[in-house]
Amino acid sequence: MKFCSNCGAPVMLRVPEGDNLPRHVCTACEAIHYDNPKVVVGCVPEWQGRILLCRRAIEPRLGFWTMPAGFMENGETARAGAARETLEESRSQVEVGSLISVISIPSINQVHLMFSGRMLNDTHSPTSESSAVQLFAEEEIPWDQLAFRTVVHTLHHYLEDRRQGSPGLHIIDLGTSAA
Amino acid sequence: MKFCSNCGAPVMLRVPEGDNLPRHVCTACEAIHYDNPKVVVGCVPEWQGRILLCRRAIEPRLGFWTMPAGFMENGETARAGAARETLEESRSQVEVGSLISVISIPSINQVHLMFSGRMLNDTHSPTSESSAVQLFAEEEIPWDQLAFRTVVHTLHHYLEDRRQGSPGLHIIDLGTSAA
Repeated sequence: MKFCSNCGAPVMLRVPEGDNLPRHVCTACEAIHYDNPKVVVGCVPEWQGRILLCRRAIEPRLGFWTMPAGFMENGETARAGAARETLEESRSQVEVGSLISVISIPSINQVHLMFSGRMLNDTHSPTSESSAVQLFAEEEIPWDQLAFRTVVHTLHHYLEDRRQGSPGLHIIDLGTSAA
Repeated sequence: MKFCSNCGAPVMLRVPEGDNLPRHVCTACEAIHYDNPKVVVGCVPEWQGRILLCRRAIEPRLGFWTMPAGFMENGETARAGAARETLEESRSQVEVGSLISVISIPSINQVHLMFSGRMLNDTHSPTSESSAVQLFAEEEIPWDQLAFRTVVHTLHHYLEDRRQGSPGLHIIDLGTSAA
């Protein structure tokens, strides 16, 4: 950030009164501009025991597999966002269920909220964001071609909990290596 | 947002190519500026069965009681943010525990992540944000003077689960009335 989004004047980094972190503050209108972590919402869509994954048609990690997920938008709930991303990336309609994982990635200022998803039918298809969309039995999951550590962690815990018959919430903090 | 934070030129609202929502796009450098929900992190600090609450010294809801919570900052995990806010608002040091509630408030573009918190000792005191900081037994909690619905929901579920001896996660979506 170099300019004030409110008045267009240059901003400077300084600690506002009553704060304890440097913020971008406008040199003219004194507006304070905060920058905060973003929320990524997604789900693990399931249909008759199989898991729906999307092959990424866009960078980063083009060609690798992920569950449907993306940035939560203003005006929606976390679960509505997870359902929307699933529809956008896989054309699959899901009823969003329990929360599987809350994953903080401080190195890139993100928090991921990954839910279970019950597919309402087996409709799914490629989209502009996914070059392939496919149902995988547990033993078919392409573990060495998953796009992100968030996907690996979430799928691992989800399948492990499914085997145990006890869905649980997993709070995970990822370190500085690539997410 | 009226001006581009990258180059200072005016922005306009339009749907960028490949997107499906209007964004602020710079009329000069074409930078796209996204606006997304913010994460509020906090905890329910507990010491020998009593709950630590803070009386708000600032608006909104000045004079009402809340658990310590605030906006998650870049570069921190959700749990670290909850511990930081607790220290800042109540001078209490906590070990952050399980997740009690995930509360979406689409009307104000927020997601609240509220954790349990084990106080490491009984140190606590007023701060610039809290005119009073006090431990309450369950029957002493000032239910009619709580600051926000997020506080009411989280405390209610936490105490109910504690009575049952089964801590659980509560996913809550709040509607359009004041949060």
